[in-house]
Amino acid sequence: MSDTREQGFVIVVGLGPGDKNLITPEASAALAAATDLVGYATYVARVPERPGPTRHISDNREEIDRARHALTLAASGRRVVVVSSGDPGVFAMAAAVFEAIDEGDPAWRALDIRVLPGISAMLSAAARVGAPLGHDFCAINLSDNLKPWGLVEKRLALAAEADFVITLYNPVSKARPWQLGRAFEILRTVRAPETPVIFATAVSDARERIDTVPLGKAVAERADMRTLVIVGSSRTRTIAREGKPPFVYTPRKTPAEPSP
Amino acid sequence: MSDTREQGFVIVVGLGPGDKNLITPEASAALAAATDLVGYATYVARVPERPGPTRHISDNREEIDRARHALTLAASGRRVVVVSSGDPGVFAMAAAVFEAIDEGDPAWRALDIRVLPGISAMLSAAARVGAPLGHDFCAINLSDNLKPWGLVEKRLALAAEADFVITLYNPVSKARPWQLGRAFEILRTVRAPETPVIFATAVSDARERIDTVPLGKAVAERADMRTLVIVGSSRTRTIAREGKPPFVYTPRKTPAEPSP
Repeated sequence: MSDTREQGFVIVVGLGPGDKNLITPEASAALAAATDLVGYATYVARVPERPGPTRHISDNREEIDRARHALTLAASGRRVVVVSSGDPGVFAMAAAVFEAIDEGDPAWRALDIRVLPGISAMLSAAARVGAPLGHDFCAINLSDNLKPWGLVEKRLALAAEADFVITLYNPVSKARPWQLGRAFEILRTVRAPETPVIFATAVSDARERIDTVPLGKAVAERADMRTLVIVGSSRTRTIAREGKPPFVYTPRKTPAEPSP
Repeated sequence: MSDTREQGFVIVVGLGPGDKNLITPEASAALAAATDLVGYATYVARVPERPGPTRHISDNREEIDRARHALTLAASGRRVVVVSSGDPGVFAMAAAVFEAIDEGDPAWRALDIRVLPGISAMLSAAARVGAPLGHDFCAINLSDNLKPWGLVEKRLALAAEADFVITLYNPVSKARPWQLGRAFEILRTVRAPETPVIFATAVSDARERIDTVPLGKAVAERADMRTLVIVGSSRTRTIAREGKPPFVYTPRKTPAEPSP
């Protein structure tokens, strides 16, 4: 008989934005092979029901404990799939798993640990309106739970100076009501008032709502915990359509001399 | 009889990095519904063969002509799928399609135009090594075909100052042999020599090769046209493993005071 401990694994999977048609076949196969599913309750609930796997659900803030739990299960031979929404490597569970490995039992390094990519929130939001990420861009997590707010402000100012398209993850929460408004203030000092801002909420599920507004009129209260915000660069354009929301895209080309 | 012109569409689809298990079910359904496939020969060749659709293949540089061709076909009632690798909205075909719409026949704005997200090169590359994009990051297209090189250098310097993890798309080509080396030079003036640099080539296909090296020893010649380069932030860490390549991740947390 083989040692069952050698068969354990931790696979960190991204479920995409919500629609099951945006889950990759690779991720679906991992979910089908799991003996244990670990994750925030909302995401575990998105995994199709089947007999067998044990569901370990936890609060959204307990990421490092959840990661340690997954590793402990795998070390005992369990086939563990840790689920995230979007892509697990972008402001989600994968980093927490590697933090736990880095600081935890050295034996965990020998485990079979894999990350499977998913459709991230910024990609699904961008696709809904056109191609706002068609040129250089950045992604900033607006939460100051794990970093000083000063660093966020510094990054916003430098990203604006670099003329990146800027995607803002975790723009607001009950405990962080003012940060997005402050981010808009900073960006308004550099970007023109007509710069397109996209609020993309609950992309691909029944509550989906997408709005494109000029930066000069962007109101932070439009965002909630399920919203991703994309702020255009100086080159981002809208294409008006009759009876439909506008397309938004960033051209591939930047001329040698800045436009007046 | 209905007007067939109303049935035409352009759907811009991302095929992911190469492995068919990384194509979303949504994208597969679009491919199955197409009467016409439009794209660079290498990507059209990745679409599973079936009887029916006409394949319109073109050279990689003719993006805007390809976009116009797709829109012309859709306006005549064809169901056109434009294929990209990775995500179509990230340095790929979607922006070209909207440029063509913006500058082209106003009737094109009334067409059914959709973008379906895909697993982008940066997400699949990052997943292979761990979670290097676990904290704020940016994506810079290193090609100066469509923008002045001075702008690329400015963005590299500002991204380094912002301490973003930096992903470099299109790091080299035959016509652009020196740009990646220059980018490393710029980043070495700000980032420590031990900063992890990931070279991810041909991710998920048979020729896949992934190397993680310190910035101080990163050599541009390691990259080719199928390589994505990720340069860590000051916080990006590696986890050594016996007999296996190291994990690379960027912790979620940044302390209030910079490390000495």
